[in-house]
Amino acid sequence: MLETISWTGKAMRLLDQTRLPVETVFVDIADERQTWDAIKRLVVRGAPAIGVAAAFGAYLGVRNFEGEPDALLDRLEQVCSYLETSRPTAVNLFWALKRIRDVGQTAAKNGADSAAIKSRLFDQAILMLEEDNRVCRAIGEHGAKLLAELASADDRINLLTHCNAGGLATVRYGTALAPIYVGAERGMRFHVFADETRPLLQGSRITAYELQQNGIPVTVICDNMAATVMQQGKVAAVIVGTDRVAANGDVANKIGTLGVAILAKHFGIPFYVAAPTSSIDLSIATGSDIPIEQRDSKEIINGFGRVTSPPEVPVYNPAFDVTPAELVTAIITENGISKPPHERALKDLCTPRSLTSQEM
Amino acid sequence: MLETISWTGKAMRLLDQTRLPVETVFVDIADERQTWDAIKRLVVRGAPAIGVAAAFGAYLGVRNFEGEPDALLDRLEQVCSYLETSRPTAVNLFWALKRIRDVGQTAAKNGADSAAIKSRLFDQAILMLEEDNRVCRAIGEHGAKLLAELASADDRINLLTHCNAGGLATVRYGTALAPIYVGAERGMRFHVFADETRPLLQGSRITAYELQQNGIPVTVICDNMAATVMQQGKVAAVIVGTDRVAANGDVANKIGTLGVAILAKHFGIPFYVAAPTSSIDLSIATGSDIPIEQRDSKEIINGFGRVTSPPEVPVYNPAFDVTPAELVTAIITENGISKPPHERALKDLCTPRSLTSQEM
Repeated sequence: MLETISWTGKAMRLLDQTRLPVETVFVDIADERQTWDAIKRLVVRGAPAIGVAAAFGAYLGVRNFEGEPDALLDRLEQVCSYLETSRPTAVNLFWALKRIRDVGQTAAKNGADSAAIKSRLFDQAILMLEEDNRVCRAIGEHGAKLLAELASADDRINLLTHCNAGGLATVRYGTALAPIYVGAERGMRFHVFADETRPLLQGSRITAYELQQNGIPVTVICDNMAATVMQQGKVAAVIVGTDRVAANGDVANKIGTLGVAILAKHFGIPFYVAAPTSSIDLSIATGSDIPIEQRDSKEIINGFGRVTSPPEVPVYNPAFDVTPAELVTAIITENGISKPPHERALKDLCTPRSLTSQEM
Repeated sequence: MLETISWTGKAMRLLDQTRLPVETVFVDIADERQTWDAIKRLVVRGAPAIGVAAAFGAYLGVRNFEGEPDALLDRLEQVCSYLETSRPTAVNLFWALKRIRDVGQTAAKNGADSAAIKSRLFDQAILMLEEDNRVCRAIGEHGAKLLAELASADDRINLLTHCNAGGLATVRYGTALAPIYVGAERGMRFHVFADETRPLLQGSRITAYELQQNGIPVTVICDNMAATVMQQGKVAAVIVGTDRVAANGDVANKIGTLGVAILAKHFGIPFYVAAPTSSIDLSIATGSDIPIEQRDSKEIINGFGRVTSPPEVPVYNPAFDVTPAELVTAIITENGISKPPHERALKDLCTPRSLTSQEM
């Protein structure tokens, strides 16, 4: 199974996502400068993956440091501040580096020597990697059960996904694709239609790549072909990820998700959303309170190095849309599954979280 | 108003569509070789436009010919056979050239001299151009009335279209866009969302261009953004063209049309199809009898000179889809409007056709 981030024993190994979808190349990252460069150049991408990579980067930046604990903490602070400049809009970067700093300071306060502090930093990076795996894996377990209930005409479960909520945005399993990977381990057979996902083509570039690498049959379609494959009976369920879920179950996700949800409803196909509870924002009542980022028109009309529209033509390019809760058949979290009415179910699923997973 | 094909008095003037969407350049075509080249290189495209261009090309190929009627007809046959090789899959090309040949032979049979035969060929080309304008214009008249009934919150009628069924595929007005052009002449104000229409981007390349050139406000969106602009209340109706309508009102059109129709139904938005009666095929009972062309996967994953999917990944690329009649609010023809049940209405609309338009 493709690993986005792993620890070799000596270095952090990253799948170089700048070479996708054509080449599979891993790079070993040995210090904070290489980490900075890898995050900056999108060698590693996806909020959870960036967080974990930064945590390892902070450790790598101090592991060869010789000196007293105070000097080590100064050095750690320098390394973390430096790593924060690699991709300043990535929230998980700051979250992860804050966690690393806190671990260092707490260890020093408790009288640990420099070697012990470094050891705690390393343990923390490993813990964050494992946490990501644990949450994604648990989503996969719950989701695989749900998928196993689906009718399968041809001895395989036919799914459709939009954008990439896969392993390449996390350490290994992803969210929307985790139930597929877990199901496949247990002998379930799948076929997945990957919407190419305009304008940035995360579906054809990334989802198609990782499914192919992980041995899951995948077919790329244009976004506007989803209705046709559903009409042909080739889709038993839709499964997507999410950027944020409101308290009532409204789901913000990559632009195009809303359309897929409406098509699924029209054809009587279940529409599943995979979401770590960290993506469920109970402070937001409904999806209308979720701000939608507008992006540059060039992504649409000049996205391939060739102009595909007349000059000066207005272009609308929202990055996300909001799917109303009534179109969402189930929300799959690491703590279990929310079915309508989602408002109550989501509250319950978010309640039993331990402090550690709340901090995530 | 942009004219795809016109007669200058000396030559056929074509809007060079190979320069779109960035440059507006017209080329004057003086003989059959230039006509062949223009059709071959897609300087002129769209079934109706190709037919008319070929008719002028046949005339241009014989207009300077000096000789007796028999020799003239031989020469006409050579020119027509030659022009047929320019784009052998275009049905309208053969239809138009057959009509031109028939006119020449009939004139000769009736004793016309060479000058008179050439004059009849020219008249026929002009007639075909005018017929195209008449049919499209009549679709525009009927459609404009329908659009005038739509609610308009902001003093303009907000539409969404998919692909290009515009003037650039015909002589001037197009089919789906004709109601907009006719309405605009009468002072109606519009705004049109143009789906970019993957994989070949006819919406962003062609529809956006022609609406902009003709002074109609247009905004380009990716196909997967249609649901969002409908959700925002920015679409009062959808209007699209068609390649073929079955007797029951099922509509085959560019891939993605079905999805837009389902979204329109979900949001309670009327879904209109503009169709010359020549596109209504009463011999086909339902849309399931319409064959769907499958096209090369390269159009999707290597369409812009850059590979956007992993090598060897399966791709599904149907060129058309079929929208079931129950999703079609109205079919706008040159003879009037079909409303459900379409089966009866379409039969009526096709009945009063004159022999000339039946031949089309």
